[in-house]
Amino acid sequence: MAGNIFADLPKLPMAPEAAERMETLLARPGLRIERIVSSGQASPPGFWYQQADAEWVLLVSGEALLRFEDEPEARRLRAGDWLQIEPMRRHRVESTATDAPTVWLAVHYLKV
Amino acid sequence: MAGNIFADLPKLPMAPEAAERMETLLARPGLRIERIVSSGQASPPGFWYQQADAEWVLLVSGEALLRFEDEPEARRLRAGDWLQIEPMRRHRVESTATDAPTVWLAVHYLKV
Repeated sequence: MAGNIFADLPKLPMAPEAAERMETLLARPGLRIERIVSSGQASPPGFWYQQADAEWVLLVSGEALLRFEDEPEARRLRAGDWLQIEPMRRHRVESTATDAPTVWLAVHYLKV
Repeated sequence: MAGNIFADLPKLPMAPEAAERMETLLARPGLRIERIVSSGQASPPGFWYQQADAEWVLLVSGEALLRFEDEPEARRLRAGDWLQIEPMRRHRVESTATDAPTVWLAVHYLKV
């Protein structure tokens, strides 16, 4: 399996009802690598992600505001920024760039 | 843990004896995510990588020629290209860009 993480990116601006795109690039027991393409979407108001698995995420291109519930302010992520998200740590995407696609690489893994 | 994958890149051209740089960004049982920064290096003549673990690799920036022993020609990798390398599959880096750093994200995992 091979590909390019910038393949088939949407043209912006998108219709407001357009959804984020998620594609699995690798799936193994306890490990999943996915590409997420955001085009201006944010998490719904009041919604928090809270995942049983751990996540390592790299913002490959674009820009986003990522908020952890246990931090007072959102973090501004730019191309190349990566971070670890511990299992069950509540977080949400406050915003993503509206002028260019935001491409995320997410590595989900079971924390043992 | 958080960081930027483009942080502290070397200025090119580098001295010929300069080494590739490898940094571990995440280490867990059966999983290791690392950043590799190449600045014109290639694998030594006749050398082949042959790893017991599986690898998923993303070329984040720069350019490289990656050769698998079981393929007649090297693959030219550009920014955004990703591929899977199966355990024990012999491969080598024929060349990397000399005008700008080549940044790799490598996800090493145990294939079960």
